[in-house]
Amino acid sequence: MNDDAEATTRGKDLTAVRRDLHRHPEEGWTEFRTTALVAAELDDRGFDLHLGSEAVAADERLGVPSDDDIAAARARARREGAPTDYLDRMGDVTGLVAVKAYGDGSGPVVGLRVDVDALARQEATDDDHRPAREGFGSTHPGEMHACGHDGHTAIGLGVARELDANGGFDGTLKLFFQPAEEGGRGGLPMSRTAHLDDVDHLLAVHLGLGAETGTVVAGYERPLSNAKLDVTFSGEPAHAGGEPNAGRNAMQALATAVQNLYAIPRHADGATRVNVGMVESANAQNVISEAATMRVEVRGETAALNEYVLDAAHRVLDAAADMHDCEVETALYGKTTTFECDPEMVAAVRDAAGGVDGVTDVVDHRPFGGSEDASYLVRRVQEAGGTATYVGVGASNPAGHHTAYFDIDEASLDIGVGVLAGTVRSL
Amino acid sequence: MNDDAEATTRGKDLTAVRRDLHRHPEEGWTEFRTTALVAAELDDRGFDLHLGSEAVAADERLGVPSDDDIAAARARARREGAPTDYLDRMGDVTGLVAVKAYGDGSGPVVGLRVDVDALARQEATDDDHRPAREGFGSTHPGEMHACGHDGHTAIGLGVARELDANGGFDGTLKLFFQPAEEGGRGGLPMSRTAHLDDVDHLLAVHLGLGAETGTVVAGYERPLSNAKLDVTFSGEPAHAGGEPNAGRNAMQALATAVQNLYAIPRHADGATRVNVGMVESANAQNVISEAATMRVEVRGETAALNEYVLDAAHRVLDAAADMHDCEVETALYGKTTTFECDPEMVAAVRDAAGGVDGVTDVVDHRPFGGSEDASYLVRRVQEAGGTATYVGVGASNPAGHHTAYFDIDEASLDIGVGVLAGTVRSL
Amino acid sequence: MNDDAEATTRGKDLTAVRRDLHRHPEEGWTEFRTTALVAAELDDRGFDLHLGSEAVAADERLGVPSDDDIAAARARARREGAPTDYLDRMGDVTGLVAVKAYGDGSGPVVGLRVDVDALARQEATDDDHRPAREGFGSTHPGEMHACGHDGHTAIGLGVARELDANGGFDGTLKLFFQPAEEGGRGGLPMSRTAHLDDVDHLLAVHLGLGAETGTVVAGYERPLSNAKLDVTFSGEPAHAGGEPNAGRNAMQALATAVQNLYAIPRHADGATRVNVGMVESANAQNVISEAATMRVEVRGETAALNEYVLDAAHRVLDAAADMHDCEVETALYGKTTTFECDPEMVAAVRDAAGGVDGVTDVVDHRPFGGSEDASYLVRRVQEAGGTATYVGVGASNPAGHHTAYFDIDEASLDIGVGVLAGTVRSL
Amino acid sequence: MNDDAEATTRGKDLTAVRRDLHRHPEEGWTEFRTTALVAAELDDRGFDLHLGSEAVAADERLGVPSDDDIAAARARARREGAPTDYLDRMGDVTGLVAVKAYGDGSGPVVGLRVDVDALARQEATDDDHRPAREGFGSTHPGEMHACGHDGHTAIGLGVARELDANGGFDGTLKLFFQPAEEGGRGGLPMSRTAHLDDVDHLLAVHLGLGAETGTVVAGYERPLSNAKLDVTFSGEPAHAGGEPNAGRNAMQALATAVQNLYAIPRHADGATRVNVGMVESANAQNVISEAATMRVEVRGETAALNEYVLDAAHRVLDAAADMHDCEVETALYGKTTTFECDPEMVAAVRDAAGGVDGVTDVVDHRPFGGSEDASYLVRRVQEAGGTATYVGVGASNPAGHHTAYFDIDEASLDIGVGVLAGTVRSL
Repeated sequence: MNDDAEATTRGKDLTAVRRDLHRHPEEGWTEFRTTALVAAELDDRGFDLHLGSEAVAADERLGVPSDDDIAAARARARREGAPTDYLDRMGDVTGLVAVKAYGDGSGPVVGLRVDVDALARQEATDDDHRPAREGFGSTHPGEMHACGHDGHTAIGLGVARELDANGGFDGTLKLFFQPAEEGGRGGLPMSRTAHLDDVDHLLAVHLGLGAETGTVVAGYERPLSNAKLDVTFSGEPAHAGGEPNAGRNAMQALATAVQNLYAIPRHADGATRVNVGMVESANAQNVISEAATMRVEVRGETAALNEYVLDAAHRVLDAAADMHDCEVETALYGKTTTFECDPEMVAAVRDAAGGVDGVTDVVDHRPFGGSEDASYLVRRVQEAGGTATYVGVGASNPAGHHTAYFDIDEASLDIGVGVLAGTVRSL
Repeated sequence: MNDDAEATTRGKDLTAVRRDLHRHPEEGWTEFRTTALVAAELDDRGFDLHLGSEAVAADERLGVPSDDDIAAARARARREGAPTDYLDRMGDVTGLVAVKAYGDGSGPVVGLRVDVDALARQEATDDDHRPAREGFGSTHPGEMHACGHDGHTAIGLGVARELDANGGFDGTLKLFFQPAEEGGRGGLPMSRTAHLDDVDHLLAVHLGLGAETGTVVAGYERPLSNAKLDVTFSGEPAHAGGEPNAGRNAMQALATAVQNLYAIPRHADGATRVNVGMVESANAQNVISEAATMRVEVRGETAALNEYVLDAAHRVLDAAADMHDCEVETALYGKTTTFECDPEMVAAVRDAAGGVDGVTDVVDHRPFGGSEDASYLVRRVQEAGGTATYVGVGASNPAGHHTAYFDIDEASLDIGVGVLAGTVRSL
Repeated sequence: MNDDAEATTRGKDLTAVRRDLHRHPEEGWTEFRTTALVAAELDDRGFDLHLGSEAVAADERLGVPSDDDIAAARARARREGAPTDYLDRMGDVTGLVAVKAYGDGSGPVVGLRVDVDALARQEATDDDHRPAREGFGSTHPGEMHACGHDGHTAIGLGVARELDANGGFDGTLKLFFQPAEEGGRGGLPMSRTAHLDDVDHLLAVHLGLGAETGTVVAGYERPLSNAKLDVTFSGEPAHAGGEPNAGRNAMQALATAVQNLYAIPRHADGATRVNVGMVESANAQNVISEAATMRVEVRGETAALNEYVLDAAHRVLDAAADMHDCEVETALYGKTTTFECDPEMVAAVRDAAGGVDGVTDVVDHRPFGGSEDASYLVRRVQEAGGTATYVGVGASNPAGHHTAYFDIDEASLDIGVGVLAGTVRSL
Repeated sequence: MNDDAEATTRGKDLTAVRRDLHRHPEEGWTEFRTTALVAAELDDRGFDLHLGSEAVAADERLGVPSDDDIAAARARARREGAPTDYLDRMGDVTGLVAVKAYGDGSGPVVGLRVDVDALARQEATDDDHRPAREGFGSTHPGEMHACGHDGHTAIGLGVARELDANGGFDGTLKLFFQPAEEGGRGGLPMSRTAHLDDVDHLLAVHLGLGAETGTVVAGYERPLSNAKLDVTFSGEPAHAGGEPNAGRNAMQALATAVQNLYAIPRHADGATRVNVGMVESANAQNVISEAATMRVEVRGETAALNEYVLDAAHRVLDAAADMHDCEVETALYGKTTTFECDPEMVAAVRDAAGGVDGVTDVVDHRPFGGSEDASYLVRRVQEAGGTATYVGVGASNPAGHHTAYFDIDEASLDIGVGVLAGTVRSL
């Protein structure tokens, strides 16, 4: 790509689209270029666009990067050819809901949610890694599409193309290009808009997840509910030799918290998890720590179990601060809940998948294992009386999700479009 | 002694008195027999007696045993011949202040404080231990005069005898027979009475303390300030297998507290100490602990340092309870403060000691090392404008204080009486 | 009962037998009277008796009381009329395996395991509690048949009586009267004898467990595997004020251990548990703790999960001792494993139960929930090629197992005999 | 300074020299420019130079930066005009011992040790700060001469200049330009060379330390002994949701270590300190931590007390790793010991100082308070039979040592030279 020209998806097949996105991965809440590219093509295709704070409840975003980081990401997107009109319309908030009525518009409203963000990790650069070998590896140091959301984005676009090309369907299509799925930060604020109120049927999709190309899972189920906390203990510094009593030691608060977080009692009703992934307090050896930060994750097999651990974690954090005369601030970095797929939607996907080229195996249900903030969108639709399912499209991967060598079999892109567009038509 | 007859100190020399007390050791707040015996002789000698709640501020007693334990100790004292008149006057509260004016009563009021309680420990019963060998070992299982307070009590009586026998002095003698020095429980409530208001000069005395017979220390100094806390965490029980989440775990509160108590920061201004001597929580292995108790001690080189550690300890205890959704109750079991001896009193003791038979060595000052609740009496007198000192009377001991083989060289008793009576006369 | 006469079960119906046992509960490894009474009647009935160390591998007993406690229990049993012959044959070890061949002895060997011990808990003494009201409450303070083993013992005897009375069956009956089921202490050592080697079919039985009278559960399944550890940390005492550095603090080792035991990571494969039920370290407040004890329990949904937690617990305990320069000793107090019931045995019980008077409901399977050391006997039989099941006999209880008001509906005794004898005959 | 030309100290007065060094601060083990500048002038003055690994035992250096950091610092020094000859002779190791015999060389060998390194901290850039206002603030972001070592270096040079200019003295001068005093990293390796073997008298010097300009402290005493440890716990990562049991959690090891480090028992013999200044473990929230690092400092009022805490810290760290199945590596980042000044040296400084212009007040002794790795040089000299003292030269500072606003009254430079050169002459 020539960084001087305006970038575009138009005229490129899905593989080319996906590779362009793969070269320009953008972490959660900084998906400016990705979103603007998609918006531009969908605008051409006659979709109504809801961008930025019209697509997500901006005040309810979780785990938002600093203003500086967002400004830098916008500048980079601009530099890298993001169509400026759409960039301007987004402001500082990423997210897109695109709507188009097909037929006479009397049919059902069908939503399709795809997530668009990349991960904060360095991509492999050696020749064992196809994106590197074939020249479409990440050009953003420390960022990588290591979970296939580049493919998800391409599929979202592909479904619009397919319907446009093949007579549409009788109903309204709503495409949800969700930011910040990683960490569970974008699902909640997207679910807190009115766009889901009239959705009769919602589809969400994920590539890979251990399924080989050709396999379709009509309904992933039982994701774990989780929550992520950013924690900061604040105390007062002092010279550890001269006045050990004068400080208020954030380091001791941190250690007490870590020990007691892991010791949150197990629960009779099912599996729970708690983990401290990150701690940091950086002072000279002879300084009583003034501040310490932690990143904590809790999980539960059910939303109630997740709340149980989250409540206990808050109690531990508060008491650890009190114990060492410190203050503590906690911010929700991300959160997901659980969901269940509706049988009629699972059946619809299963039936549609049967007729798609390249599909060799259709499975009704598999356990999801991890966590997903599509859960908030699913629940919102179901609470309003709609139905939903979370669809898996097999993609043979050479390496696990979130690893430096992750890649997707691009044959899965057309399969995904086929299954989803077929399902939309059948509803 | 015949337990049927009324016991008495009358007609017995100090060694015999001390041995009788040694056979009948009584722990803090249960010194009914000891106090009654002393009261009886002093009554005969014309002292005004203030017994029980007239001698100590009963409501401010620290570390008081249960009502049952006190009732049992009173019954035992009665069984063992304690003069019933004085027993009845004491009620449930031990303590005695005995006052007698000598001469025309125009001279100074001189106080002498001796402590009378025994320790909760089993005395050695083998022939290596002189009290056992010579038949005056403790007859109370688990109680022992292992700190010489039997000797202190005898000396208190001896000073009265000596003054009576040798012409008294020009002034008023106030004898403070203080209960419950062990643990620092009796000094505070005795200092909260009016008896010290008019004391011009106060003497306190201790035998042994590492000094050999013949040595007199005119002014022990720099005791540590300390405080002892009884702590109870209360939670809720649950079956640890069936419902681990249902309990509120006092055991976890206890462990968190112990870890963080020892980690209370050191202080720039001087030595501090913290220790957890006792923990107990008794449940079956599969029960989440409903209750857990601890006994904690803090110390400081100064009263301010002691308060620093005590405040920090309270903060730790409260937060440990909060952390595990428990409640905590703390009760002060005992407390001591620091004191300084007045130079004129040190000089008076030094001068008096010089002329006493058996005294071979007089030292002005030694560091006290441990803690002493005579500190409250000393401070009270000094605050009211009086002067005080804490006198050491050497007594060659075969074994350390508080050990099962502790004993005192009884030659120290007459020396102690000589030094103290001599000092009283000189003031 | 007249304590002067020799006690006996002979001539008493099962309810009377159970009530006599209920009045004389004996904790694990002290079931001298219980075992001797049963042995006496079975001896009369022509059973071969294996008593004491012939019934259990004495060296492999877990959680054995002190020699003094055992001696006191034997003396009590003697005082309370236990037949002295059998008492003498037992020595200091409880346990009985009784064997009798019926018919020509060519049929299968069928084992029946019943547990005989009581719990360490005080029985309710008010009139709300039928045993108290009707005069058969425990006469042993602090001990109680609160889990129905008095009934199990009676049923064991009842099966022998029934077979004897009604023509026996074609085979050999082996009755295992197992000591010390509570805490999981007797199953393992009983399984380490040769008595199970030739058992073709093993039945174990439990009354109650939440099932009402009339219900029979042909195969309880999925007990939790567990292990209980007695832990002692040993350090060195020191004066906490004078020489805080001189000690090796068992209290700190204890606290570190408790905190980290609860923080043993959860396991992906299923539920695990860890609990510290008891801690004790008893010193004066100013003494660095020389010794501290704990009682710990771990559990796992499978034997492998149990081993995972047990290994982690040992690692934590060892490191906690090292950290504070202490030593640690751990002793296995009790242990259980998991088992699965053989379908053919479940079927046999189901079929037999159908024809028993009073049986209203037969259930094939229920989850066991708790832990059971019959698991070791079941596994031993299955490993040798035999089959087994764990049978539940409903008994309407006014209060939960292990509570002070536990009692059993005695109608369940004859039902239990009927079901088990019927099954024996059918095998 | 023009970065293109070779920098030099020649022809500049001490204030100018100090300001040039102040503009170019270099952290410990990267003092390439500083050392090369001094070496160049002393070479001219006829000193024998021992540079780099000839000045320090390179293998015993503590707290050495990474190879990359050292290479970058060398490159910067080159860029900033460091004389390349001396830069080349140093290689990758900083440090300089410069030796010159005056008179007939038969007199004593007198050593002078000055430290040359800067601190890792950002200097204030506002006009309240004289170096900023007058244009000689640090040009190296994040590095600052905030402890006066720029002045020490100038004084070292000044003493050579003064002796050269004023007839020398009868003896040999050895100038020790010590790297990496901050953190206590350079003293030990410099003391492990033979250069100190023949030193009869050693002087070390520090500016400021709370003393106003005009005050001279002839012998600072009782520095704290300390040690700094870099600690790394290594475990194994795992997905905290999917396989919490599969990891070996360095985060838990870290927390256990922090808690128990702070709880290392106080010591009866005097003050001890322990602090954890830095912790870091950086993983996503859902990753069991594979690695965690800490920076720890221990101190003792005596070297023995320091060793006591250091031993205990090692025991805690090892056990914390074991407890969580991790490994731990510890590296000594820095270490200091204690020293005592020789009375004859204190007297010599006192006498010499009396005659120096600007000196208003001479104090024999003051407690040092902090820690100093000159201690190793002092001890080495004393062990070989020499004498030593640590001299304080008052310098009125507007802000405390190690703060962003630290500066020195440059009048102290000539005073320092006067006192030290005067002392050298008098020895």
